[in-house]
Amino acid sequence: MTLTTASPYGIHRVIEPKGVLPQPAWKIDNSMEIFDNEILIDVSALNIDSASFTQIKKEAAGDAARVEAIVRRTVAERGKMHNPITGSGGMLIGTVLQIGAKLAGKIDLEVGDKIATLVSLSLTPLRIDRVKKIHLDKDQIEISGRAVLFETGLFAKLPADIPENVALAILDVAGAPAQTARLVQAGHTVVVIGGGGKSGTLCVYEAKKRVGPAGLVIGVSPFAKDCERMRELGWVDHALQVDATDAVALMEAVSAVTGGRMADVVINCVNIQNTEMASILATRDGGKIYFFSMATSFTAAALGAEGVGKDIEMIVGNGYARDHAKFALALLRESPKLRTLFDEQYV
Amino acid sequence: MTLTTASPYGIHRVIEPKGVLPQPAWKIDNSMEIFDNEILIDVSALNIDSASFTQIKKEAAGDAARVEAIVRRTVAERGKMHNPITGSGGMLIGTVLQIGAKLAGKIDLEVGDKIATLVSLSLTPLRIDRVKKIHLDKDQIEISGRAVLFETGLFAKLPADIPENVALAILDVAGAPAQTARLVQAGHTVVVIGGGGKSGTLCVYEAKKRVGPAGLVIGVSPFAKDCERMRELGWVDHALQVDATDAVALMEAVSAVTGGRMADVVINCVNIQNTEMASILATRDGGKIYFFSMATSFTAAALGAEGVGKDIEMIVGNGYARDHAKFALALLRESPKLRTLFDEQYV
Repeated sequence: MTLTTASPYGIHRVIEPKGVLPQPAWKIDNSMEIFDNEILIDVSALNIDSASFTQIKKEAAGDAARVEAIVRRTVAERGKMHNPITGSGGMLIGTVLQIGAKLAGKIDLEVGDKIATLVSLSLTPLRIDRVKKIHLDKDQIEISGRAVLFETGLFAKLPADIPENVALAILDVAGAPAQTARLVQAGHTVVVIGGGGKSGTLCVYEAKKRVGPAGLVIGVSPFAKDCERMRELGWVDHALQVDATDAVALMEAVSAVTGGRMADVVINCVNIQNTEMASILATRDGGKIYFFSMATSFTAAALGAEGVGKDIEMIVGNGYARDHAKFALALLRESPKLRTLFDEQYV
Repeated sequence: MTLTTASPYGIHRVIEPKGVLPQPAWKIDNSMEIFDNEILIDVSALNIDSASFTQIKKEAAGDAARVEAIVRRTVAERGKMHNPITGSGGMLIGTVLQIGAKLAGKIDLEVGDKIATLVSLSLTPLRIDRVKKIHLDKDQIEISGRAVLFETGLFAKLPADIPENVALAILDVAGAPAQTARLVQAGHTVVVIGGGGKSGTLCVYEAKKRVGPAGLVIGVSPFAKDCERMRELGWVDHALQVDATDAVALMEAVSAVTGGRMADVVINCVNIQNTEMASILATRDGGKIYFFSMATSFTAAALGAEGVGKDIEMIVGNGYARDHAKFALALLRESPKLRTLFDEQYV
């Protein structure tokens, strides 16, 4: 196993500094002859990360030509659209031009397929040939160009039956329902903190399917409107209007609707700080917490559970699970209510 | 289920602010009439958290009488030895004086047992009657006094056959081997990052027992001395001298000794930053990482795994597991080599 040439992680394309992965690298090789474990993409659009695009627009004083110059300069300097100030990237949409011989036939992808990359632009070799249109209002740049996907690079085939913007909206949080499906079993009591949000709604929906008639799904949001929508959608048994930064309040509310049994599984989807202890107190001894929230503090979770003597398993949310894109898109086909919600709320 | 009076978490003793748990509370009730789900302790010593004691000694300019005054002031103001500057506590040693009626006979504890509390002093109601001796060099204060343990408060009975300081040294990291025992199965390949440290050694020892003859235990340390000791102790199949902040180097080293199969379980015990990616790259697809290190960054782990498309489970280290103290102390009885190591290195 040679790891430094044609590495599945793209290490062979790192120019400087040597010995790191493509994401932390300053500069990577964006030549477009692919290795036998790479995929060549004809790029049609770059969806720039919001933090990055905001910074670029500011530097360009809102001028499209200057935005183009900044983007071109970054790609020329780094071989990737990796904003040196924000450190962030984005994703791209394109069509498969060529699949390396070692991958061809072994992956569910063919030349001509339209895909979205699910790995960051901050590690994706990119060449821009022409900038066609800059959408200043939606962080998108239409281009013609080329990009390379590494062997471990994640992508999703864009389906013909779902509009591109709807597909992208659900792909953004595809890990959440896929991980819920693995965690939740029949008869479980499941609490979804932030159950009214985009990823939270998908977790609630999937949890309801899995727990069956003997189970219980409890959605939590501090907002009356979210709780109302959760009740209307009908996938929660209880919608609790509680602020999850108040650990004792959430514990008491969950205790009240579970007769003191508490949750087998707590899924935390709320991107605000200081909700670790509420998650811990809502979980029964021996239960599990899945932290999807990027605002989770590792030490608050670890020390919090030990401090109250809770023997529980706390899992770091992994946005990737095998076939998660396929899984998420299938939900939109399976549930017209979910599809309508995405059409109306999240595009 | 009434949660606010005689709460298992001690919420009933919170004086201000109301509605929070005893640890974040500014002041708790340290009156020594116990509720029926509390335990009263005759305290003999306070082991002050190192960060806290360093701050106190500095404020006292190294003067023992002033250290006493500061400690007494804190307990008088807060009802607990919760350093208002560092936010940290410590633990205490004492003898059980009284067990509340609701707990008596239901827990493995009797009046007269000598115990160490495994919950922080930052949430433990405490009254100091007399300060007997201040050990400035070992962060310990001998006192006579009283303390209260809540229903969920963790403790360990101090055994008669193991010296107190040796017992305390292993109780400090008791969660590590107990969690290793749950994670590791026969035939597994296990990587312990920081395998030469105190908790790492216990993980290596327990992993070696569990994997059996078909398994593989790999210890990692950047220090030649640690690697030498790991080899001498004989519980690792390989000791890799690699700096785990170099993700690619660790991946290549683990790949070399596993024939590219990588690890089923990675246990990260090293308290330095930026070792998440090395842990991720050393794990096989479908494997697990247990992060014991308090230097773990939640976002580095979550985004790191997604960035390289690794479908792995990453677990937040929980210092508590049921019966972990009993488990850890039994290791010292089971292995004379481990006992000697603790006698020589960690007291």
